[in-house]
Amino acid sequence: MRGHGDEANRDSRRGAIAQSAVRRSNLARVLGEVRFSGTHSRAALATRTGLTKATVSNLVNELIERGLVRETGRRQAGNVGRPGRILELDGGSSAALGLEVNANYLAVRAVDLADRVLLDRRIAFDAVRVGASRTVGELARLAGEAIAELAESGAHLVGIGVAVPGLVDVPSGTVRYAPNLYWQDVPITEWLRRRLALGEETTITVDNEANLAALAEFGDESNTVSELVYLTGELGIGAGLISEGGLLRGSDGYSGEIGHVPVDPYGRKCRCGQNGCLETKIGLAAAARTAAPDLVGTFREPEEQARILLRRAEAGNPQALTGLDEIGRWLGVGISIAVNMLNPGGVVLGGYFATVSPYVVPTAMRELRARTVAGETAVCPITASVHGFTAAVRGGTSVITEEVFRDPSRVPAGAGEKHRATGES
Amino acid sequence: MRGHGDEANRDSRRGAIAQSAVRRSNLARVLGEVRFSGTHSRAALATRTGLTKATVSNLVNELIERGLVRETGRRQAGNVGRPGRILELDGGSSAALGLEVNANYLAVRAVDLADRVLLDRRIAFDAVRVGASRTVGELARLAGEAIAELAESGAHLVGIGVAVPGLVDVPSGTVRYAPNLYWQDVPITEWLRRRLALGEETTITVDNEANLAALAEFGDESNTVSELVYLTGELGIGAGLISEGGLLRGSDGYSGEIGHVPVDPYGRKCRCGQNGCLETKIGLAAAARTAAPDLVGTFREPEEQARILLRRAEAGNPQALTGLDEIGRWLGVGISIAVNMLNPGGVVLGGYFATVSPYVVPTAMRELRARTVAGETAVCPITASVHGFTAAVRGGTSVITEEVFRDPSRVPAGAGEKHRATGES
Repeated sequence: MRGHGDEANRDSRRGAIAQSAVRRSNLARVLGEVRFSGTHSRAALATRTGLTKATVSNLVNELIERGLVRETGRRQAGNVGRPGRILELDGGSSAALGLEVNANYLAVRAVDLADRVLLDRRIAFDAVRVGASRTVGELARLAGEAIAELAESGAHLVGIGVAVPGLVDVPSGTVRYAPNLYWQDVPITEWLRRRLALGEETTITVDNEANLAALAEFGDESNTVSELVYLTGELGIGAGLISEGGLLRGSDGYSGEIGHVPVDPYGRKCRCGQNGCLETKIGLAAAARTAAPDLVGTFREPEEQARILLRRAEAGNPQALTGLDEIGRWLGVGISIAVNMLNPGGVVLGGYFATVSPYVVPTAMRELRARTVAGETAVCPITASVHGFTAAVRGGTSVITEEVFRDPSRVPAGAGEKHRATGES
Repeated sequence: MRGHGDEANRDSRRGAIAQSAVRRSNLARVLGEVRFSGTHSRAALATRTGLTKATVSNLVNELIERGLVRETGRRQAGNVGRPGRILELDGGSSAALGLEVNANYLAVRAVDLADRVLLDRRIAFDAVRVGASRTVGELARLAGEAIAELAESGAHLVGIGVAVPGLVDVPSGTVRYAPNLYWQDVPITEWLRRRLALGEETTITVDNEANLAALAEFGDESNTVSELVYLTGELGIGAGLISEGGLLRGSDGYSGEIGHVPVDPYGRKCRCGQNGCLETKIGLAAAARTAAPDLVGTFREPEEQARILLRRAEAGNPQALTGLDEIGRWLGVGISIAVNMLNPGGVVLGGYFATVSPYVVPTAMRELRARTVAGETAVCPITASVHGFTAAVRGGTSVITEEVFRDPSRVPAGAGEKHRATGES
């Protein structure tokens, strides 16, 4: 049986937890104001947030200690008292690392909180031949190098976001199944954490590449819709679905597998075991078969393949033109499925689709118009990704930076001083 | 130019609007407590809602005047003072009307706020032959009769929810396109409002039948998932998509058109103009063709057709058994598309699928297992609707009753007295 002392302890513990939740949420509010509404004095922030000046001043000091906000030399006049110092986002103190595993390459990218690129690398890599364990090993090596460079610059590493072309159990960071990598049950978070000797204070998030790419597109300033379908265009075809501004993950996080929608029951066998999946019609391998048969069986990075296709189409190569037209037609079939099912406000094409978009979008658009049951109202624009092959790894960094803006206490109190001590900002 | 007086007026008007919004939300809170947490005294409601006793007493009196809550004879002892009278939901004072237009029938259903059925009718009706204007005329006649009966019982009619097998512009209540009715741009709300001489105080909501049916299934006590796909099984095949407990409508409300996903490019021409749509494989017409060819071209209500199919299958009729197995296989293909795209926690089959479920679900399940890319984890149960052919019209009533629970001020102040005066409850 519990005594009264226990209960009182529990109550005070509960109170402390609630208070620290309120403080975290207020920290995020103040940081959000500084981030989105330009520069302000403490007094102006108090007016905008409705918090007292004392509270705001307190929170701002904490944000400065954590290196998230800094004072500029300028001052802003208020109604009373002397002009207050103007505050701005101190993006440089913290960094987010994005990693991407692709069947043909590995990518690393790091940005600070202001989304300034700190490093950006991609190496050709045959992940299928090399296998899961050695691929994650190589990924860890690249990440380790990047972390060392970030440490030199004094930026605090908040976390790592990893994009993988497969079905991911997000809570555990395990790739359940990646048909184009031939991976099954690969515990990426666990392996990376061990090889990089990172503690729990550094977040590691693993997610499907299409989901992360969709988040990157959605967050881009050029995006104007809240219902968006992002289509990857690599060896595999997947969709990242955004609805009401958030990812539509489904019950277990396995949504968006549009590549395996059967569009031709008499079609070619797919890696998933079924016949005539959309992927067998418009995946990068299908593009090579129909538009550039001499590339079949050669090992090339997807981006290089895409550039070859584009160059040949631009040069008027008949096979490339006919092939890409055929790809555009099936792409339109695939997009019409997403549009009839989900009625998005826009479809964004990633990967090689983005590269060759002038040669596939008009045909796809014609097909979409013919197939949209709701007619013209529901026909939405099909656009090429602004990020091309980098969308997924960009999504990897942005899930991490967004985490800081949601909970600024993720950055430790010493981060500001440490960063200033290195003399960089 | 505005004077200061205008500004003061505007400020006080704004204040009044804000206050009445708070009052409405508190009314809904108190009504919700009475609805979901059993019976309570005013004092107990104050404890549960955190509002003061005076406020709760005030709100309860208002709910009694509106006929939404009533006092029972019993009393509940509190900590102080004399025991308080116990309150309960007074469901009988208000009614919601549901209407359904189907290619082969019209349906009317009325329930009170406690979901007690006040009337429930369905008539065979050839909406295609009769055309939009006369069909809506007949619907208005049926609704008018129902409204007269409800008026006699003293129940206040809150609104009408109309289910239509087509693409609906929900804000205006206009059917944009209903391929199986051959309707285009039919302003149902406007026509019903005029023919029934109903003012703006009576809501008229028109929505896609699959959406409304999905809401009815989602709200049923047997449902345990928050991500749900409901498949209609009538002449047309549509999906109602529920995600995180709400309808996934897409950008313009035209989501869920799974019936027109192309599954066989060499297949039969669909009414939408394309070839090999899912509907051409598993719509009720396809079921007749494959499982009971002698029914093709005869006019029968869908439910009757479904019963004939079931009886023949139960009697071991080989054509019926082979045909339903074929339907089950394509149904599995269709469900796997929804599951791979959306990863729901459950798929519910409506219409004739529900009737013949023992003869289609096992085959569909086998197909789903083989086609779910994420494997066993993402394979979800396929169940028959508990409401069968009545799901859509039930959804029509429930959108209206939910409106009252969200905003109890939708019921006028006199409703309680009026209802008690008729002596019914």
